[in-house]
Amino acid sequence: MPEVITAGETMIILNPDQSVPLEYAHSFTKQIGGAESNVAVGLSRLGHRAGWISRIGNDPFGNYVRQVIRGEGVDTSLVSVDHEAPTGVFFKERKSGNAVNVYYYRAGSAASRLDKSLLDRSYFKEARYVLVSGILPALSESCSEVTEELLKISREQNIPVVFDPNIRLKLWPDRQEAVTRLNHIAERSDIILIGQTEGWQLTGSYDEEEIAAFYRKKNPEVTVIVKLGAKGAYFSTPEESGTVPGYPVSEVIDPIGAGDAFAAGFLSACLKNAGMKEAVKYGNAAGAVTVQVSGDIEGFPREAELDAMIRQAEAETEGTVVEEVNR
Amino acid sequence: MPEVITAGETMIILNPDQSVPLEYAHSFTKQIGGAESNVAVGLSRLGHRAGWISRIGNDPFGNYVRQVIRGEGVDTSLVSVDHEAPTGVFFKERKSGNAVNVYYYRAGSAASRLDKSLLDRSYFKEARYVLVSGILPALSESCSEVTEELLKISREQNIPVVFDPNIRLKLWPDRQEAVTRLNHIAERSDIILIGQTEGWQLTGSYDEEEIAAFYRKKNPEVTVIVKLGAKGAYFSTPEESGTVPGYPVSEVIDPIGAGDAFAAGFLSACLKNAGMKEAVKYGNAAGAVTVQVSGDIEGFPREAELDAMIRQAEAETEGTVVEEVNR
Amino acid sequence: MPEVITAGETMIILNPDQSVPLEYAHSFTKQIGGAESNVAVGLSRLGHRAGWISRIGNDPFGNYVRQVIRGEGVDTSLVSVDHEAPTGVFFKERKSGNAVNVYYYRAGSAASRLDKSLLDRSYFKEARYVLVSGILPALSESCSEVTEELLKISREQNIPVVFDPNIRLKLWPDRQEAVTRLNHIAERSDIILIGQTEGWQLTGSYDEEEIAAFYRKKNPEVTVIVKLGAKGAYFSTPEESGTVPGYPVSEVIDPIGAGDAFAAGFLSACLKNAGMKEAVKYGNAAGAVTVQVSGDIEGFPREAELDAMIRQAEAETEGTVVEEVNR
Amino acid sequence: MPEVITAGETMIILNPDQSVPLEYAHSFTKQIGGAESNVAVGLSRLGHRAGWISRIGNDPFGNYVRQVIRGEGVDTSLVSVDHEAPTGVFFKERKSGNAVNVYYYRAGSAASRLDKSLLDRSYFKEARYVLVSGILPALSESCSEVTEELLKISREQNIPVVFDPNIRLKLWPDRQEAVTRLNHIAERSDIILIGQTEGWQLTGSYDEEEIAAFYRKKNPEVTVIVKLGAKGAYFSTPEESGTVPGYPVSEVIDPIGAGDAFAAGFLSACLKNAGMKEAVKYGNAAGAVTVQVSGDIEGFPREAELDAMIRQAEAETEGTVVEEVNR
Amino acid sequence: MPEVITAGETMIILNPDQSVPLEYAHSFTKQIGGAESNVAVGLSRLGHRAGWISRIGNDPFGNYVRQVIRGEGVDTSLVSVDHEAPTGVFFKERKSGNAVNVYYYRAGSAASRLDKSLLDRSYFKEARYVLVSGILPALSESCSEVTEELLKISREQNIPVVFDPNIRLKLWPDRQEAVTRLNHIAERSDIILIGQTEGWQLTGSYDEEEIAAFYRKKNPEVTVIVKLGAKGAYFSTPEESGTVPGYPVSEVIDPIGAGDAFAAGFLSACLKNAGMKEAVKYGNAAGAVTVQVSGDIEGFPREAELDAMIRQAEAETEGTVVEEVNR
Amino acid sequence: MPEVITAGETMIILNPDQSVPLEYAHSFTKQIGGAESNVAVGLSRLGHRAGWISRIGNDPFGNYVRQVIRGEGVDTSLVSVDHEAPTGVFFKERKSGNAVNVYYYRAGSAASRLDKSLLDRSYFKEARYVLVSGILPALSESCSEVTEELLKISREQNIPVVFDPNIRLKLWPDRQEAVTRLNHIAERSDIILIGQTEGWQLTGSYDEEEIAAFYRKKNPEVTVIVKLGAKGAYFSTPEESGTVPGYPVSEVIDPIGAGDAFAAGFLSACLKNAGMKEAVKYGNAAGAVTVQVSGDIEGFPREAELDAMIRQAEAETEGTVVEEVNR
Repeated sequence: MPEVITAGETMIILNPDQSVPLEYAHSFTKQIGGAESNVAVGLSRLGHRAGWISRIGNDPFGNYVRQVIRGEGVDTSLVSVDHEAPTGVFFKERKSGNAVNVYYYRAGSAASRLDKSLLDRSYFKEARYVLVSGILPALSESCSEVTEELLKISREQNIPVVFDPNIRLKLWPDRQEAVTRLNHIAERSDIILIGQTEGWQLTGSYDEEEIAAFYRKKNPEVTVIVKLGAKGAYFSTPEESGTVPGYPVSEVIDPIGAGDAFAAGFLSACLKNAGMKEAVKYGNAAGAVTVQVSGDIEGFPREAELDAMIRQAEAETEGTVVEEVNR
Repeated sequence: MPEVITAGETMIILNPDQSVPLEYAHSFTKQIGGAESNVAVGLSRLGHRAGWISRIGNDPFGNYVRQVIRGEGVDTSLVSVDHEAPTGVFFKERKSGNAVNVYYYRAGSAASRLDKSLLDRSYFKEARYVLVSGILPALSESCSEVTEELLKISREQNIPVVFDPNIRLKLWPDRQEAVTRLNHIAERSDIILIGQTEGWQLTGSYDEEEIAAFYRKKNPEVTVIVKLGAKGAYFSTPEESGTVPGYPVSEVIDPIGAGDAFAAGFLSACLKNAGMKEAVKYGNAAGAVTVQVSGDIEGFPREAELDAMIRQAEAETEGTVVEEVNR
Repeated sequence: MPEVITAGETMIILNPDQSVPLEYAHSFTKQIGGAESNVAVGLSRLGHRAGWISRIGNDPFGNYVRQVIRGEGVDTSLVSVDHEAPTGVFFKERKSGNAVNVYYYRAGSAASRLDKSLLDRSYFKEARYVLVSGILPALSESCSEVTEELLKISREQNIPVVFDPNIRLKLWPDRQEAVTRLNHIAERSDIILIGQTEGWQLTGSYDEEEIAAFYRKKNPEVTVIVKLGAKGAYFSTPEESGTVPGYPVSEVIDPIGAGDAFAAGFLSACLKNAGMKEAVKYGNAAGAVTVQVSGDIEGFPREAELDAMIRQAEAETEGTVVEEVNR
Repeated sequence: MPEVITAGETMIILNPDQSVPLEYAHSFTKQIGGAESNVAVGLSRLGHRAGWISRIGNDPFGNYVRQVIRGEGVDTSLVSVDHEAPTGVFFKERKSGNAVNVYYYRAGSAASRLDKSLLDRSYFKEARYVLVSGILPALSESCSEVTEELLKISREQNIPVVFDPNIRLKLWPDRQEAVTRLNHIAERSDIILIGQTEGWQLTGSYDEEEIAAFYRKKNPEVTVIVKLGAKGAYFSTPEESGTVPGYPVSEVIDPIGAGDAFAAGFLSACLKNAGMKEAVKYGNAAGAVTVQVSGDIEGFPREAELDAMIRQAEAETEGTVVEEVNR
Repeated sequence: MPEVITAGETMIILNPDQSVPLEYAHSFTKQIGGAESNVAVGLSRLGHRAGWISRIGNDPFGNYVRQVIRGEGVDTSLVSVDHEAPTGVFFKERKSGNAVNVYYYRAGSAASRLDKSLLDRSYFKEARYVLVSGILPALSESCSEVTEELLKISREQNIPVVFDPNIRLKLWPDRQEAVTRLNHIAERSDIILIGQTEGWQLTGSYDEEEIAAFYRKKNPEVTVIVKLGAKGAYFSTPEESGTVPGYPVSEVIDPIGAGDAFAAGFLSACLKNAGMKEAVKYGNAAGAVTVQVSGDIEGFPREAELDAMIRQAEAETEGTVVEEVNR
Repeated sequence: MPEVITAGETMIILNPDQSVPLEYAHSFTKQIGGAESNVAVGLSRLGHRAGWISRIGNDPFGNYVRQVIRGEGVDTSLVSVDHEAPTGVFFKERKSGNAVNVYYYRAGSAASRLDKSLLDRSYFKEARYVLVSGILPALSESCSEVTEELLKISREQNIPVVFDPNIRLKLWPDRQEAVTRLNHIAERSDIILIGQTEGWQLTGSYDEEEIAAFYRKKNPEVTVIVKLGAKGAYFSTPEESGTVPGYPVSEVIDPIGAGDAFAAGFLSACLKNAGMKEAVKYGNAAGAVTVQVSGDIEGFPREAELDAMIRQAEAETEGTVVEEVNR
């Protein structure tokens, strides 16, 4: 029985091997991508039991999605198979610098047909957190109902809801619809994990304190964490607030997955009953480890690695002597 | 101004580099695939002016489709760009032997929104043949209208219609619908190029003479060519009929594209005013050259190559001495 | 709780991308290989709960082995991590034809340190078969003890033991030692799955009836299945015996894994309470599907696929029309 | 009928996949390279009709060169086929940093046999610019005659000549010969596009004003554009002069092709009757887009992209929010 | 000091990774190719001291050619470096089946400037055979002089000359010139190794006895070996003649290099003072091993391997049990 | 007969093509790695005769190690073949940044069975330096004896010993053992080449003067070179001392091999009887060239290249004009 439960779509990524406009890309590597399953994998790697609820096509790509996520130790017993709709697919395009375009082939995908009837209440018996992302409700009417059902079950069973808006404007009819719907979810959540740009999109302010205030006004009990990139993260609870500085990163290789790693590191500490400051620190650390490795989940740290990273940063050793250790 | 005109969808193929179930395929190569553009390319390579009418997405994949086909010398001036719908995509799966599965992501593609209003009558001024395939009418209502418009323009301008049913059952609501619709087109065509299995699907008989009789009953003037694989092809015109034997093939590397090569070789000879028997011979030869090379269009012969192949087969030289010639 | 339990070593394979002597191979692809985990994967794919007991290094290769096998749905809760010894590795060399050499780097591997104390009796509570292979006892003294413990637990809990000798002469001090030890296990097994060449090595006869008689003399209750390659398999129980013909295979792409697929197909039918003849038929069918696909486990069939294969062979349809179905 | 016409050699590039000395490079990717065809492709991508005159071998490499350039929409009707000489080839070597060596196999190539008799005057009927590069006259006596013929036709038909010296010292007998011959062409040109280092080689001064003055002295009517790299470009016409600053570039991925992109952007604006300052701005912008993408032509912008880039730079938005837009 | 000495050109091969017409080949692998160095490598692998005389460009490709051949243990002390001419290059094209085209970029290569003044007579002190190929004299006037010098030195120092005509018609002005020149060398050689097709080209007869008679008429002391492909080889000395049957080959993977392997196997046996029949047997065996492996030299056998192959064939074991031995 | 002799293990490296944790690496490239053979290759490339003494397995990997090193021109006549133990192997893991982990499969390798009886005293007849590394004595008891024998032979034949500690803590039982044993070798050496971190490990001080003083106290005649990375190198002889500044490096691509290149450059100058300052300068230059190229030995400079690099740096040209020269 999972300690943390989430639901969402995971797609096949066709990632070009060449950093050129897609018409000139010649070969592609198959990967998988999904924000919610990323967090589940991150938690599994840190030693926790995570469950991911989804729907896959009755096709090889669906099999693959399940294989990878299950292989990482995530519980997939509530992943159902749709015999009519395919697993979603998208293509990345890396033209230059860090700019990434995506081309979706996900309309009508199996995951967009996820149905609330599949949510088995007994599955939540040992859940200590439910993670809701802002992608799922954008996928379809039935997915929006799944989101509502998650909120309902959590309320019934008294499980704190963690919300990551994960704004994907391409999935919403328009920006206003996205803002209204996402804020409606946020207001009913216990913990909000939000990026600074997302904060601006949803609250109209880049300022972390203003972002937190926006949500606190609607729900005085909420905890708001504003991710500040290299600067770390700001947190605001009814009791305390502050900024936890980020960890130094020698080179950002791949920023994708950083937010998911933050969520995993943060929730891992929460599961171990760490204080808020400590939890944010683990979120920062997990994000820092992750952005230094190519791939969404490839860089997610294991428990020992994350601890070592934090210890090392705290010792502030003035020069790593990697070669000694590893050779 | 093209001598031969056709219309249809060309998609991006993601072809796995490994012959394993798709969940285990790790890398893919980008190609393009489309029966109608294949024939146009085949004709261009044999020195004729061919025109391909289609619609592509305003995306890199659409650009690529046009680049390749235009690069082969086909006229693409009636290829329009759709700013709302994407270029279609499909994945091949080569599990074992010659069995190939395909997974389509083409619903609602740009090409399925091809509209008859785009058919410019002046484009057909120098056309000597119009090639109609049975794929196009299956794509959408508007594509079916394009097919009808092609038939109408051909009738008006007195251009012979060549029809290749190219049955793709996945695209039709059901088998009966496919049979009815395709036969309705066939009845209004001047030349039918049909495979033996297709003949069975559309007429109920595998027998080449019966297949030809089926269509002749509806249209006494029709020319029917039944492709018999390695055995060659049978032809039946109001004046004559017979079987033209195929060319020996040392190894079938890739059977896909053989029918399109046949059409190109056949039409090339027709354009040169060859007799029916001669034209079928060129069709057979083009097919034989093509199946020995990997890829849909890669193996399509050039004029000199095709002539050399036929000459060599006719001389029945008792042993090729390739090394001498090429090294 | 697994229905079928097995134990063994799974190693990282470095498979050269080129079929040349290994000194000229330039690039390698990482895979995993292990006969016992293969059978567990095969059973999982056919819808059964299989458990695989092993030991992996505290290294990325160990993580990978576990990810793949767990991803396929096999229970890995009794896979322990060794913090001192590495995960075993081997290199394949495909010089020409079907001849494959292997170069092992497995001496002292984590799996060779598998210890009988790790076998948790409660893990066998729902087990309906225990699969013992002849590789495990050859790895080390402690692995030999694990084999004995598996036999002991099975006897205690009344679980039938299925034995596959899987002779690997490189792992034994000498051929005589291998014969003595493997036959000693065979004598205490309930079902023996053995190849014809293995039969000759262990009993001195290639003849399937003589091989079965050899083992029946020692244990009148034993069931012996002699795998006869393309010819199918011979079975001999106390009640009946006979040969079940094999399925036609268009081309053998990769014979490795065929025996493991046989075991999975056979046990799957047994778990569904099929009769012996039926079970052997499913073993044959699974083997036939598998050899047509490259890779150890990639070609293992799913339940629907296996049923379809058997149905199709029984209908003896006179020509597959793959294109119709898949396109 | 093309609006801009150019002539030159395009070769097959064998580009090593590894950045090591060439003896250690193991695999190569086939590309094409040619300064003149680059400009033609750049213009085609910006929506103009460009014509490229050349000669290719009767070999697969020649076919490929034509396919790519024709595929990009460039008119290739004056590309002839030489049945005796091969298409030229060169190897790149990327040892370290940005230093690139080239190894030519182009002596006696088909393009070096380009003959002025192939220049069809009617082809220039709609030409608004003729682009002459300094590479062509270095290839052979007949190529030098083609250059002279281009100048002659332009003069006759009153088409402005744009000259890019494109100095390649490996192609000239010695540096003095290069300087004399290139300056002799420059003196008869209407617009000179020249790099700063080239200016030093041809005029003895790095200073942009002195370079312009050098050429104005010989031809008072000339327009001189000196490309200043990241700093932008200086222009000098009989009426005005000045420096147009360059666009910010986040990272230079591949500087090759920047000069050709400048020419395309510049000429595109000229074709739209932009003023000189505006035209230089478009040249700068096209160069800036291009250097951020790997490959000679892969990064050439389309019209919408170029406009967007200029708009964005002018709006001086303080932070791009790429993710919002694209996901 | 080498026991066998040869001289010739070795070029860089760019071998396409895809079996398609070269315009569609996307990536290439670098290899080296040269008939004479092949034989030297084959002899080195069989434990003999072989020397290869050549000339390479002062470029990375020249370095690579020397590295590979020296790495195989061949003496390269008489390989000189040309500072003006490049190392030759050629492209392979594998369109279909076994037909291979080559595209040479070797005119004026470094090796074509090999000069007889570089032949140091003391280098031949321990030579027991000099191998002359028919490729070298076709390359240039100076290379023809080198061939003559080799014949002269051999005569002076009483070293038997082994001649392999290795006809490459692309290198000769015409067929008649090739025949005249090659036969003139053959007449002055001691041992002629010739293929059946070559025999027909040079003597007008495919018949092995007539080929031998043709040369014996000119030089009664000559030994003629006619290679008969799968059938083995015919030998004719002044004392005896006969046909030595070939070895069974399960699949011909790559026929190139078979003749060079024959020469190496044959000469190896000669160096061990084997009789003629025995020597031909070793030639046959080396050829049979080689054609089963991809690449020119990759499949050349080592001494133990060759002996094992012959032993096994002689024992006529009725079934290989490869798995037992290797796993 | 070599001028410089060294002994050590060279292993096969499996280098992942992806910079991700090893469990996610999919493909690997085969390379070789060994500090001692690196120096020998570096010296050979600079025109000197170097000899490398080692032991390889009777396996394809052993063949490959010898092929590469012999191909580079190093004398391998004292490389013996072990018929029982395999060639060592290790895997690299490049997770992020410059941190590299290695996973060794070298316990009991052929090289660890190198035996002092194989050291043929006559081999040292023309030796002017013997290079001893601190890796060899860590491999095994017999390898430690080989190290002692090298010291003994050098003393007997009056050949200066150059010592590079090359600390690999994974190979030693513990750090103290490493320090004691390595310092014991250092005390008996004539020239010590040591990195700053190594100096701290072996002497307790990072300070180059203190490191030198540490060793001088034990052996007043010793020459100590402390490599200071980008800053250059410090040298201390009985007569003089000082710091020779390093060469500017545009980008460090691969730091591995820098120390070996330093040793080669330094010894090359010594062999040409350069003064100490000059020798250190050549060491610095060789290191600087090498770190700008990927791979251990790929970037080692040739003589002309090294001279050019030094000349260019001394001329302090203010801007390289690479394009002019190479194109």
